[in-house]
Amino acid sequence: MRAVDIIMAKRDGRELSRQEIEFMISGYVSGDIPEYQVSSWLMAVFFRGMSFRETADLTDLMLRSGSVMNLAGVQGPFVDKHSTGGVGDKVSLVLAPMVAACGVRVPMMSGRALGHTGGTLDKLESIPGYTTRLDEKSFRNYIAADGFAMTGQTDAIVPADKKLYSLRDVTATVESVPLITASILSKKVAEGAQALVFDVKSGPGAFMKTVDDAERLANSLVRTGQAMGKRIVGVITDMTEPLGNMVGNFLEVEETIDCLKGGGPADLMDVTYRLGAWMLVAGGKAADVAEGESLCRKAIASGAAWDLFVANVRRQGGDAERMESLKGNYRSAHRRELRAPAAGFIQGIDAFKIGLAGVYLGVGRNKTTDAVHPDVGFRFERKKGYSVAAGDLVAEVWGKDAASLDSAWPLIAEALSVGPGKPADTPLVIKEITAL
Amino acid sequence: MRAVDIIMAKRDGRELSRQEIEFMISGYVSGDIPEYQVSSWLMAVFFRGMSFRETADLTDLMLRSGSVMNLAGVQGPFVDKHSTGGVGDKVSLVLAPMVAACGVRVPMMSGRALGHTGGTLDKLESIPGYTTRLDEKSFRNYIAADGFAMTGQTDAIVPADKKLYSLRDVTATVESVPLITASILSKKVAEGAQALVFDVKSGPGAFMKTVDDAERLANSLVRTGQAMGKRIVGVITDMTEPLGNMVGNFLEVEETIDCLKGGGPADLMDVTYRLGAWMLVAGGKAADVAEGESLCRKAIASGAAWDLFVANVRRQGGDAERMESLKGNYRSAHRRELRAPAAGFIQGIDAFKIGLAGVYLGVGRNKTTDAVHPDVGFRFERKKGYSVAAGDLVAEVWGKDAASLDSAWPLIAEALSVGPGKPADTPLVIKEITAL
Repeated sequence: MRAVDIIMAKRDGRELSRQEIEFMISGYVSGDIPEYQVSSWLMAVFFRGMSFRETADLTDLMLRSGSVMNLAGVQGPFVDKHSTGGVGDKVSLVLAPMVAACGVRVPMMSGRALGHTGGTLDKLESIPGYTTRLDEKSFRNYIAADGFAMTGQTDAIVPADKKLYSLRDVTATVESVPLITASILSKKVAEGAQALVFDVKSGPGAFMKTVDDAERLANSLVRTGQAMGKRIVGVITDMTEPLGNMVGNFLEVEETIDCLKGGGPADLMDVTYRLGAWMLVAGGKAADVAEGESLCRKAIASGAAWDLFVANVRRQGGDAERMESLKGNYRSAHRRELRAPAAGFIQGIDAFKIGLAGVYLGVGRNKTTDAVHPDVGFRFERKKGYSVAAGDLVAEVWGKDAASLDSAWPLIAEALSVGPGKPADTPLVIKEITAL
Repeated sequence: MRAVDIIMAKRDGRELSRQEIEFMISGYVSGDIPEYQVSSWLMAVFFRGMSFRETADLTDLMLRSGSVMNLAGVQGPFVDKHSTGGVGDKVSLVLAPMVAACGVRVPMMSGRALGHTGGTLDKLESIPGYTTRLDEKSFRNYIAADGFAMTGQTDAIVPADKKLYSLRDVTATVESVPLITASILSKKVAEGAQALVFDVKSGPGAFMKTVDDAERLANSLVRTGQAMGKRIVGVITDMTEPLGNMVGNFLEVEETIDCLKGGGPADLMDVTYRLGAWMLVAGGKAADVAEGESLCRKAIASGAAWDLFVANVRRQGGDAERMESLKGNYRSAHRRELRAPAAGFIQGIDAFKIGLAGVYLGVGRNKTTDAVHPDVGFRFERKKGYSVAAGDLVAEVWGKDAASLDSAWPLIAEALSVGPGKPADTPLVIKEITAL
C-alpha cells in the first residue's frame, strides 16, 4: 500500500477501505507518512467527502490512536452533550448538573475558546480555584459522586485528532463535514459515553453559517455515530444572536448561577431543557422529550441541579462561596455602554461580531497560547425584538483595558441593528435528527 | 499575506493574484512555506484549476526561480518542440537536424524515460560517447555551429519545477492541466526559444488518455504561452500504438538513422514532417505548413538533415562511425519473438502496455535513479491493419536478462490484439491549435 495511491483514490472519488484509512492515519501518527501527503489527502477529502462508513472508520481509527476513559465501576447511563460552538453558549454548565440530577451520568470533556467562539473550560476556570485538569481516577470518582465532572482533553485522548487538527488548521482543510465529524465524535466516544446529544449551531455566530450546512453536519454526526453503535441525537439550534444575556467567562458563570436557581433567560433555558430532555431519553431516563423536559424543569425548580453544581465546584477545587460573592462584582474597570443609536426595534445582535469583539476584549483567543480574562465580556440588557428609544442601554461591555474596548468597538457597534418594525420571531430549535 | 488564506482562496474557487502565486512559489523555494501547505494548495489547484492568466503568472514565477539560457550572439530564430511523452517517440532526434537544416535554430532541452514513456536523453546516450550534459557555453556554440544541440535540464534551470514536481509526484497532484502547463512551459521558455511547437500525445500510451484531455492541455499550453508573448502551436497526435517500428534506446537511434536517410516508417515521418513544418512556420522560414513540409522533405532527401545529425553526434562526443557500425547489431542476447496467436488482422498494439513492458526489459525506469539499457526493446515487424497468419512474426523483443522477458511477457502478449476484419484507419494528427 502506498500513500500516493490512497490520495489518488480519494482524489478520484473512490470510497476508501478501512485498511486504506488505517494506513493513512496510523502512518501519520507514527511519522511514516509525511505531512505533505496527509495534507493533500485532507484536501482531496475536502472536495470528495466521505461516506458514513468511511467516516465511521476514520473516527474509530482516530479513537484507537490513543486511550479511552475507563469508567468501569461507575454506574451509568453515560450520556454527553457536545456543542459545535457559539457565542454565549454556557449550556454545558447548566445542563450537566441538571441532567445528573435526573440520574444520567455526564462524563464531560470540553474545549477552550478559539476564534469567535467561547470555551467551557475557560468559563469554569474563571471560578476561583476551579481546575479542569482531572486525572482519569478523579474524573471517574467525581462522576460517581456528583453524577458529572468537567475536564479537558488529555494528551492521551485521540492524539491523532490533535495532530490532524493542527495540520488542517494551516492547510485550509478545517471545513470538511467528515473531518469535523471524526474529530468531534472520536473525542466524545473516547470519553466513554454510550449516547450523545449534539447541539449543532447554525447561523452567523456558528461554525456552520447556514441551516443546510448545519443539517449536513448533524446528519453526518448522527449517521456516523449510529454506525459506531452509539445512540445519537442531533439538534440544530439557531446561533444568530448570542445565547442568553451574558457573554464572557465569569459573566457566563453568573448567568449559569441564575439558570440553576430558576432565573435563567428564556432562550438559554429553552435550548438547555430541550437538550437535557434528549439526554434523558437517550439515557433511558425518560420515555419521550416531553417527559424529559418535565424532569429537567423539576431538577432546576427543586434546587437539585444547583446543589450538584456547587458540589462539583467544590470537588474540582473551586471556592463556591467566593463564586457567589463575586457574582455581579467580578468586572473589569474598563467598561463602556452600548446604546441604541436611534428609536425602533432591535432587529438583532450579530453573534459573530460579538464573538470577534470578545477576542479583543479578552473573552476569547486567536491562538491557543493566548491568555483569556475572567472579568470581561458583555451583559445584554435587550436583544432582538425589544423596542428602544435613542440612547437606551443595550449592553454593558467590559474590556481587559481601554485599548481593547477601542479595538472592539466598531465590531460591537456594527453588531447591533435597530430599525422600524418588530422583527419576526425565529425558532431556536430548528430541526432534530435522532438515531435512538 | 498568509499561505493558509491563499490555499483557502483557491479551494473556494477564487482567481489568485500574481502576488499570491508569487508568495506561494517563492516561499516554497526559500523554504519559508512548508511542503504540507504547498501540497494542499496543489490539491486545491487540481480541483479548481487556474485561469490562463494565473497559469502564465505561475509559469513566469517558476521560470524566475532559476536562470535562463543565454543565447546572445547566436543567430535565431530559436524554435523548439516538446512532446508530452509517448512510446517509440524518437521524433526529436529526427526533427532537430531536419529543422536546423532549414535555418531554424533548435535549443533542445530534453528529459529522461520515466514510467511507460521513453526519454530523448536516454536514447542519445545509447550512442557510444555521446554526452547530454552541456554547459551553457557549449550549448550556445553547438547551436551556432550545427543549428541545434541536445542537452538535459541543468539544476539552475527552473529549480522550482524540480521541487514542485517531486512533491506533486508523491501527493497525487501530477494530473493537473495548469500545473503540467507551467512545468512544461517554464522549462521551454527558459531554453530561450521564441516559438514553441507542442506535440500533445493522446491515447492509451500518452499521459492524456483522451482527446478531450489532450485538447485541454494543448489549449492551456497555447493560451498560456501566448499570454507570455511566445508564438505557439499545439498539435494533438495519436499515441494508441507505438510511434514507428522501434521502441528502445539504441533501437530508436537506429530508426532515427533510417528516417534521416529517407527510409523512416510512414507514421513516424508523417508526425515529424508536420511538427517540423509548424516549426518552420513559427520560425518565419515558411509561409504555411505546406511550404514547411516541402522544405522538411527536401532537408531529408538532400542528406542535409543527416549531415547535421552526424555533426552533432561528433560535437557532443559521440562516435558516429561506431554508431553506424552498431546498427542492427547492438542487441541484447536475451531475445524472444512475439508471434500472432491466430490468423486475422492486427487490431492494434497497445502503446501503454508496450511502454510498461519496456520498463521490465530495461528500456525505461520506474524511479529516476534506475539505470536503463541501450540494447533492449522492441522491433515491430507489423502493426495495426496488417493481416497475419497464426504464428507470423509480429515483433522481436530484447530484454536485459531472461527474467526481464518473463516479467514483461504477459503485458506484451496482452498488448497485441488480432481479430477478424481490417480495423479502420485513424488519423495520427488529430487537431492543431495555433497562436502565431
